[in-house]
Amino acid sequence: MINLIFRRAEISDLPAIIQLLSDDILGALREKQNDNQKNLDSFEEIDKDPNQFLLVVEDNNIIIGTLQLTFIPGLARSGMRRGQIEAVRIASNKRGEKIGEAMFQWAIEQCRNAGCGLVQLTTDKLRPDAHRFYERLGFESSHIGYKLRL
Amino acid sequence: MINLIFRRAEISDLPAIIQLLSDDILGALREKQNDNQKNLDSFEEIDKDPNQFLLVVEDNNIIIGTLQLTFIPGLARSGMRRGQIEAVRIASNKRGEKIGEAMFQWAIEQCRNAGCGLVQLTTDKLRPDAHRFYERLGFESSHIGYKLRL
Repeated sequence: MINLIFRRAEISDLPAIIQLLSDDILGALREKQNDNQKNLDSFEEIDKDPNQFLLVVEDNNIIIGTLQLTFIPGLARSGMRRGQIEAVRIASNKRGEKIGEAMFQWAIEQCRNAGCGLVQLTTDKLRPDAHRFYERLGFESSHIGYKLRL
Repeated sequence: MINLIFRRAEISDLPAIIQLLSDDILGALREKQNDNQKNLDSFEEIDKDPNQFLLVVEDNNIIIGTLQLTFIPGLARSGMRRGQIEAVRIASNKRGEKIGEAMFQWAIEQCRNAGCGLVQLTTDKLRPDAHRFYERLGFESSHIGYKLRL
């Protein structure tokens, strides 16, 4: 864990991030058809939005983890801002090394520093390992996550 | 339904929105302690963020509904942008009049126009009426919504 670097993603990290996004069972199905220009445009939009932070975790110059943090201002709960975590991936050969824990500690700390009162995420019902992981970190499975494809 | 006006919230709508946010069983517990300055700051932040749209629905000059729409750029699923809906409320004396359906049709249409491939939301497990409502609209309860209070 000593050599891990947590930093904002740069444009040159894009291929490694896309690779990580396809590097699990559900992701492999989704990330099949890739459109480079669309990825570049999305990267640029994320990068210039002060409420977005795309994290990469580097281990000896190799990107081994990524997640996207979004800050959402709101009026509910007395004007509470929330932090949302999406697109969490760790290289399959690096799982079981507590890197996920370190990424979430980092993300939760960013949310605290940004004045968030809540951190939220949704995870597919088909990821039981992820459920145990989030519950160990103290997340409550209080909500149902609904999705509508357009 | 003929007189309903769907529009971006203005600062003068803030008291009516806060009132709506407390106008249900779960909300009443949460919105008890209100901090006006925090609400004003949050409103301003939402208002100036091009990825946020705070909707109010007006019926004969009275605000009867609100929701907050957030557009989230992303790299997953080939650079897909998603629309997220939070803080949905309809005045308790206006429920059962299909106003929720109209608000969601409006929101889904905005997401489509903004190029989103997915609309997502989470709802408390303790809101069975909401679950039936979202399922009627075609949303799939494919995910678990995790929350961590800070």
